[in-house]
Amino acid sequence: MDYQQAGVDLVNAEEAVRAISSAVRSTYNTQVLSDIGGFGGLYRLGDEGSGILVATTDGVGTKTEVARAAGRWEGIGQDLVAMCIDDLVCTGARPLFFLDYLAVGKNEPSLIATLVTSMATALHSTNTALIGGEIAEHPGTMAPDQIDLAGFAVGLMDPQAAIGVNRVRVGDRVIGLPSPNLRSNGFSLVRAVYTELLDHIRGGVASSEELFRYEQLIEPSVIYAPTVLTLTSNSLLHAASHSTGGGIVHNLARVIPDGLSAHIDASTWEWPKVFTDLMHDGEIPLSEMRSTFNLGIGMALVVDPAHVEAVLSSYPGSIEIGRVGEGTKRAQWS
Amino acid sequence: MDYQQAGVDLVNAEEAVRAISSAVRSTYNTQVLSDIGGFGGLYRLGDEGSGILVATTDGVGTKTEVARAAGRWEGIGQDLVAMCIDDLVCTGARPLFFLDYLAVGKNEPSLIATLVTSMATALHSTNTALIGGEIAEHPGTMAPDQIDLAGFAVGLMDPQAAIGVNRVRVGDRVIGLPSPNLRSNGFSLVRAVYTELLDHIRGGVASSEELFRYEQLIEPSVIYAPTVLTLTSNSLLHAASHSTGGGIVHNLARVIPDGLSAHIDASTWEWPKVFTDLMHDGEIPLSEMRSTFNLGIGMALVVDPAHVEAVLSSYPGSIEIGRVGEGTKRAQWS
Repeated sequence: MDYQQAGVDLVNAEEAVRAISSAVRSTYNTQVLSDIGGFGGLYRLGDEGSGILVATTDGVGTKTEVARAAGRWEGIGQDLVAMCIDDLVCTGARPLFFLDYLAVGKNEPSLIATLVTSMATALHSTNTALIGGEIAEHPGTMAPDQIDLAGFAVGLMDPQAAIGVNRVRVGDRVIGLPSPNLRSNGFSLVRAVYTELLDHIRGGVASSEELFRYEQLIEPSVIYAPTVLTLTSNSLLHAASHSTGGGIVHNLARVIPDGLSAHIDASTWEWPKVFTDLMHDGEIPLSEMRSTFNLGIGMALVVDPAHVEAVLSSYPGSIEIGRVGEGTKRAQWS
Repeated sequence: MDYQQAGVDLVNAEEAVRAISSAVRSTYNTQVLSDIGGFGGLYRLGDEGSGILVATTDGVGTKTEVARAAGRWEGIGQDLVAMCIDDLVCTGARPLFFLDYLAVGKNEPSLIATLVTSMATALHSTNTALIGGEIAEHPGTMAPDQIDLAGFAVGLMDPQAAIGVNRVRVGDRVIGLPSPNLRSNGFSLVRAVYTELLDHIRGGVASSEELFRYEQLIEPSVIYAPTVLTLTSNSLLHAASHSTGGGIVHNLARVIPDGLSAHIDASTWEWPKVFTDLMHDGEIPLSEMRSTFNLGIGMALVVDPAHVEAVLSSYPGSIEIGRVGEGTKRAQWS
């Protein structure tokens, strides 16, 4: 099984980005400092040197369908916050506020409250305010208990504190922050692998082994933002890369400059069992696992060799997983 | 037929807002200047007197299903921009940037390009940059050509230029800016009324009368933001109210202070034919029409009597539709 067979078309996704590029760029003005493909959109508020607003948007994909199978929504708001805020901090910005869009088949107040409470709790960890939201009821086009979520985060970046591609140098080390679970990526593939399990969960006939697996799948995402913000404000980071759709290496490549390459040593850590089981249960090729899942490294930090110890000691379970050399591929497995 | 019968539960919607209030407010800090229920969330960037960021989010509801019936997506991006930006300018803020979230059953690059081009064109009218977006492919949970869109707009407000509830006074006049069509509200009810018509459109067997009606339903929303921004910067507005879900009066009530009431004189304008037809075809009660649709007034402006002529002359077809007096209902029909 691969992602394409599960219905997610990465070739079309790249083509869609090409198809919209000129329309998107036609809206840019002199305040826009980013281009398509970064971890966040950058907008300078005033003259050169003034504060830069950074904005991100993301959803939780079809992890909603896994939640829906047992009505387990209490971690999904946290997933949404993690997807948006952990992208945002990869630019060096400090999150200010968040908005959510919830599309529901039927407006069920207690379910909405569960989702928003989950978001609010997650937002407390970075003092980010939930200043707006929309609940869109779509009767007939969504099943009553079907839900889709999108989040929007805005942060402020001090231009002096920006991290990313311009700071990375040959010899930098890559530190991985551990993720015990899938976060909120690759769930269309996960659902295709565990169709029967999810049917059993829905039907209330799951075995104890299936219930255990379900708990692993539905676990909420770790939020790395507080750690990344502290490291950024202590000038300990050159770059940070959130392992979302595309996996560790594809995302890391977004913060490595032309002419360099981050080599990720796959032997430096062990995958959490949920990933090895998934690979086995779905007969998923290694290349597909690597380009779809975080494989246990939810955030990759690029740091000066002198700062490796300080960064490793800032987060339990973090590991040095690679280094930056010269090369043409920006990031690769080794 | 009413909105409840069409599957949209306004009682539950109010209950959901109550259910999330304490969680939402728990995220507020001293920078947050708005509460739940305004046209935008307000976040002060620095100390008192500094610029205020305003953010809005909205979708286009199930107008997507009307578009899908004939694959007519070229106005839907404009609808999304109108829903978000026309809310934003009701606070007095000038839009800076926009992000979009597109959930699709299948990532069809040409369709995505049509939607994003429609957004970009609409954003040009207010020099708003499209700095981010997410295309979320949801195979299996959405039909291949099913789409949902959410937009997110951020603007900057000079505290001196804020408009809204604090500026409105007894004797102010209400000026309506015309909307020739439904904009992007009430479509779950519209779809319930025109189920057969939409079936005929889908099947390619629509009569010329049905095709004409379809064109009326799918027409993109007017974008009022350029006009509202000009009037705001010329200090000609006390408040502005975008007629979205809830209709003219419900939205106008959001910008009228306690103890006052805007009286809207229903005899001052004629409904565009699409609304009278809809009321007739769906046997929709007048009260339901008024609480669901814009009825031809897409934006209501509250202005000092001395500025009525200037405002009327700024927008073709605008009309004086009411005035502000003392009262307990904030806004009402008369």
